Amino acid sequence: MKAIRVHQYDAAPTVDDVPEPTVSGPFDVLVEIGAAGLCRTDLHIVEGQWAERTGVKLPYIIGHENAGWVREVGSAVTNVSVGDTVILHPLVTCGLCRPCRSGDDVHCQNSEFPGLNRDGGMAEYLLTNARSVVKLDPSLQPAEVAALADAGLTAYHAVRKAVPLLYPGSSVVVIGAGGLGHIGVQCLNAMTPAEIIVVDLSEPALSLAKELGALHTVQADGDPVNAVREITGGHGANVVIDFVGEKGAEQQGVAMLREAGSYFSVGYGGAIHIPTIDIISQEINVIGNLVGTYNDLDELMNLTARGKVKLHTTTYPLDAVNDAIDDLDGGRLQGRGILVPAGR
Amino acid sequence: MKAIRVHQYDAAPTVDDVPEPTVSGPFDVLVEIGAAGLCRTDLHIVEGQWAERTGVKLPYIIGHENAGWVREVGSAVTNVSVGDTVILHPLVTCGLCRPCRSGDDVHCQNSEFPGLNRDGGMAEYLLTNARSVVKLDPSLQPAEVAALADAGLTAYHAVRKAVPLLYPGSSVVVIGAGGLGHIGVQCLNAMTPAEIIVVDLSEPALSLAKELGALHTVQADGDPVNAVREITGGHGANVVIDFVGEKGAEQQGVAMLREAGSYFSVGYGGAIHIPTIDIISQEINVIGNLVGTYNDLDELMNLTARGKVKLHTTTYPLDAVNDAIDDLDGGRLQGRGILVPAGR
Amino acid sequence: MKAIRVHQYDAAPTVDDVPEPTVSGPFDVLVEIGAAGLCRTDLHIVEGQWAERTGVKLPYIIGHENAGWVREVGSAVTNVSVGDTVILHPLVTCGLCRPCRSGDDVHCQNSEFPGLNRDGGMAEYLLTNARSVVKLDPSLQPAEVAALADAGLTAYHAVRKAVPLLYPGSSVVVIGAGGLGHIGVQCLNAMTPAEIIVVDLSEPALSLAKELGALHTVQADGDPVNAVREITGGHGANVVIDFVGEKGAEQQGVAMLREAGSYFSVGYGGAIHIPTIDIISQEINVIGNLVGTYNDLDELMNLTARGKVKLHTTTYPLDAVNDAIDDLDGGRLQGRGILVPAGR
Amino acid sequence: MKAIRVHQYDAAPTVDDVPEPTVSGPFDVLVEIGAAGLCRTDLHIVEGQWAERTGVKLPYIIGHENAGWVREVGSAVTNVSVGDTVILHPLVTCGLCRPCRSGDDVHCQNSEFPGLNRDGGMAEYLLTNARSVVKLDPSLQPAEVAALADAGLTAYHAVRKAVPLLYPGSSVVVIGAGGLGHIGVQCLNAMTPAEIIVVDLSEPALSLAKELGALHTVQADGDPVNAVREITGGHGANVVIDFVGEKGAEQQGVAMLREAGSYFSVGYGGAIHIPTIDIISQEINVIGNLVGTYNDLDELMNLTARGKVKLHTTTYPLDAVNDAIDDLDGGRLQGRGILVPAGR
Repeated sequence: MKAIRVHQYDAAPTVDDVPEPTVSGPFDVLVEIGAAGLCRTDLHIVEGQWAERTGVKLPYIIGHENAGWVREVGSAVTNVSVGDTVILHPLVTCGLCRPCRSGDDVHCQNSEFPGLNRDGGMAEYLLTNARSVVKLDPSLQPAEVAALADAGLTAYHAVRKAVPLLYPGSSVVVIGAGGLGHIGVQCLNAMTPAEIIVVDLSEPALSLAKELGALHTVQADGDPVNAVREITGGHGANVVIDFVGEKGAEQQGVAMLREAGSYFSVGYGGAIHIPTIDIISQEINVIGNLVGTYNDLDELMNLTARGKVKLHTTTYPLDAVNDAIDDLDGGRLQGRGILVPAGR
Repeated sequence: MKAIRVHQYDAAPTVDDVPEPTVSGPFDVLVEIGAAGLCRTDLHIVEGQWAERTGVKLPYIIGHENAGWVREVGSAVTNVSVGDTVILHPLVTCGLCRPCRSGDDVHCQNSEFPGLNRDGGMAEYLLTNARSVVKLDPSLQPAEVAALADAGLTAYHAVRKAVPLLYPGSSVVVIGAGGLGHIGVQCLNAMTPAEIIVVDLSEPALSLAKELGALHTVQADGDPVNAVREITGGHGANVVIDFVGEKGAEQQGVAMLREAGSYFSVGYGGAIHIPTIDIISQEINVIGNLVGTYNDLDELMNLTARGKVKLHTTTYPLDAVNDAIDDLDGGRLQGRGILVPAGR
Repeated sequence: MKAIRVHQYDAAPTVDDVPEPTVSGPFDVLVEIGAAGLCRTDLHIVEGQWAERTGVKLPYIIGHENAGWVREVGSAVTNVSVGDTVILHPLVTCGLCRPCRSGDDVHCQNSEFPGLNRDGGMAEYLLTNARSVVKLDPSLQPAEVAALADAGLTAYHAVRKAVPLLYPGSSVVVIGAGGLGHIGVQCLNAMTPAEIIVVDLSEPALSLAKELGALHTVQADGDPVNAVREITGGHGANVVIDFVGEKGAEQQGVAMLREAGSYFSVGYGGAIHIPTIDIISQEINVIGNLVGTYNDLDELMNLTARGKVKLHTTTYPLDAVNDAIDDLDGGRLQGRGILVPAGR
Repeated sequence: MKAIRVHQYDAAPTVDDVPEPTVSGPFDVLVEIGAAGLCRTDLHIVEGQWAERTGVKLPYIIGHENAGWVREVGSAVTNVSVGDTVILHPLVTCGLCRPCRSGDDVHCQNSEFPGLNRDGGMAEYLLTNARSVVKLDPSLQPAEVAALADAGLTAYHAVRKAVPLLYPGSSVVVIGAGGLGHIGVQCLNAMTPAEIIVVDLSEPALSLAKELGALHTVQADGDPVNAVREITGGHGANVVIDFVGEKGAEQQGVAMLREAGSYFSVGYGGAIHIPTIDIISQEINVIGNLVGTYNDLDELMNLTARGKVKLHTTTYPLDAVNDAIDDLDGGRLQGRGILVPAGR
């Protein structure tokens, strides 16, 4: 089959012919890839930024945002059948450690990450296991949803954790309405009655946010902290979800909180710095957020099937991967880039 | 009546004769003070550190950790009667704003703090209102419990918030087993099945912690982060409650967490500094903690009446306030200092 | 002022001239009534069904669903000002007992219920207190919202409690899409991503439910239990909210649950009967629901101001109260009946 | 190996020689049985009460409360190793359905129950899988803990669910301090600060309950509802955990609740009957409880290893199973009966 592999760091990945993987274990699932999302992490992998951390042996197949169709299953698989359309959770987890047994499989103590530390899904087929495949509503197409497997799932997960804090009359600030943030706004709108305030530098991003359910939008290059304070009657926001997490957004995010408010950290690059006196006197919280669980992905797919979450995408043939990479790197890619193997 | 008043900053407070306060409003409660705790905050008030923040007019009566007996009540008071032994919540709250209506009265939007921004309780009588008095079990004496009104209540509150995270087999680190911390250990032991690990510099404090229910103790001047990691099988702790919050304890506290763990900030003086990549990749939380609510104080008094929480104290006559201050300042005060008006 | 009073049971109430109430205490609030909802409970009061339970002395003013404008406030009132539009929570609560201090003021140990056990709001003015008035967005008119004070608030409260159980892909059944139920559907749609299934006997009620956000509707006189089971893929619903609670609906509601599901009891008249073996083997729950809290009412008013909840009403002049009662009794009243004093 | 098998209903099971099971799949775990608890359900199986419901083919090996040592593991097992002491969760679950993925594995949509619907653990060896084995602290012996696998786990699970409702000053009633109830009292004492009230017919059971942490005991054949009401200051209990569930205990349990209280149903045989008016006017809840999850069992073993939960047992050799059955049936068995294979 065709597969996109990295042979050496800082060189363009190549389209290789490799053997198709095959089912051998009872929980194995062979998926024919319908679409593979291209993520900024893929660029970082190619640049070698993850080399030391993962220790992965080259060459290997990249790609960690995948959807497709089940082609073969092991003897013990009960949750999907041959022919099902599926999306793949980015992690392959053990199911046996305490986090897995709590439904918190993202903190699995024995997980692997296909496309990062073993062969991934920019290929015609991917071998995964039953714990990583979420069955989709037949109305959904792999190319529409593949990029929700990681980016969308992260946004969903943060929103899901914020739900108990968001009642009618409460306010939630979304910092950054880009790839993750615009999914976050849609999830907030579908799942909570909170008043949504979106902060971004880009006017088109703010316009889109309004269409997707934001009640207020704030230009990030003005004085967004005061703007949020005014919108919230001087109190600040109950919740801030920061999809930027660098270049000062993270300090502004904390400053936007009301007493007892919670800052949800999603984007990264910067650092949180708060004197303990401020943490305790305002009794505020900083909440970390990683990618979502398997059930989170299943729930996000329900929202997607019902038209409550939509993703903007640009499609490329699988073997045009380097065009897609160049477009992403050059800022020419609208929405998420999706690679589609020939004939699908 | 006799009362301890600050007349000018950076000068010793004096024992003055002032008029007794009297009940005028329907929710007023006049309390005969049985005991007034001396807190390090009182020293800071005398030094003038709070002058600008509170804008309080001198002279005024200090003291914010009080217990005593109800001597007169306004016409609308239904929760206490004349003769009841009571402890006073440190805040006087409005009961009308959203936080008050949610049971989160510490974030009252109209609160006052007797002893800080209006006349307090180092005196023979204090006028407060029905929302600030917690009725005590008759077995409890004001001198035993007064210092729980603020310091103890803060420790209780942090533990109460951590309870949902602490199951059998989970581990909680208490950093600092002093005034607040040793109450925290007792509350943890009474309210959770978690394995308690206590970190402190002082051997006597660690010994006391063991008696009060700690399963493990760790010397703070070794490598406490690694010690906690070893005790927890390499994973780190589910919860860290930091009663120190300065001089590096706050960074160590964060470093002791396991994935998805929560650091509870209580002590202050330092600053939390965490790269956002670390917050999200480990999905950890920083939880602020202020003093407890009215109901928290009621609950703490239940633990105290049942012998599950005990406080070490040293008693002084009310008019020996400056001896007590000197002893506290000079590090000669064992446990909390308690001022008792003559004849009580 | 004019007021509707009951002088003897089983006789029509009369329009009387009575003295206007006046503010005397510091938390008193005098409200000029803009609208008073007519509730089936008012009919039961007139029939004497509540006589023994309340022991109220005749004559007295009925009416417990009120909204209007603040005309005078006591000296300690901080949450509303003269001129504010307000809706009245049906209970007057003490603010001092443990439930009040927890935000659970509906279980206040010293509450009163104007219109039931003391003078109510079918009048030109009502004297209440600061704890019972919720300030409204100026865009809202008393006549639009008055009936949400009790009926709507009950529906909101049940939905609010169900929110943590309702994730994308979960299903919630609403039994009865009448006065309370159609508010419940709107609240579910605004606050949760769950798939809403509505069961009712009336085709117009089912049509309205679809417009308001129901995904599926089920005729109550077929086999609604099996219909729900089919819609939910054989599993049953995660949550059932039963606004009927009699004539078999309550047994059907329980039978519609999936394993570990929760039946929310709101309507009454019948009885829940379940063998303990069925409760434990399916691990199902029965959750009681009374009227909502003060904060619940504030939240519901936020949804109303934003157009997410709307109520159908028919308006009558205050002194046409007996026409309204006759229409309600005779089944001729469309939506909720609202009495409006002359000149408002 | 030796195994206790049922060949026909209503006849004594026999000690048979059967082939040892062997590991074939990657998640298989072969356990050498150290102890098998005898449960009243085993008697009901022998009587044929479960025949129709399970459709199990005779003969088969009974026994569903097991602990022992791992003797062989499949290639994918990561949570236990050969030589580990383990206790067996009573269910074998799929790990793939939504409940399993939520940590709620008791509601697995594809579970099996060894000893009930397939070969169980009254034998020298049992073949199970990695999802059912909980590794024990080396200090624990199989004979001490085996009976906690089902009976103890059920009590633990109910208490675990009640923890969020139980604060200092709240009260919890335990109805029935027998096999499950006396474990429940120990769990409540270890995990909550609530005031424990125990209701039972037997004086020795009440005495034991006091030793294990009950604050109050109540004779069940007096007027236990009023007794509880008096102990709780007229309010009733916040939580009632009913380990009896029949013969009127279930109606008494509900009647002991305070407003907004919760009745936890564990024991069965009777039926809950409550008019909907009472459910809603008191806003009370009925909470079903089945056996605990895998993580619950792990947590209970933590409490056991730390000496916080102890079980009274009487030991028999495996091939004396019919003596044990006769003693249980005849009311002569003290504590739980434990069968131990020869040489262990």
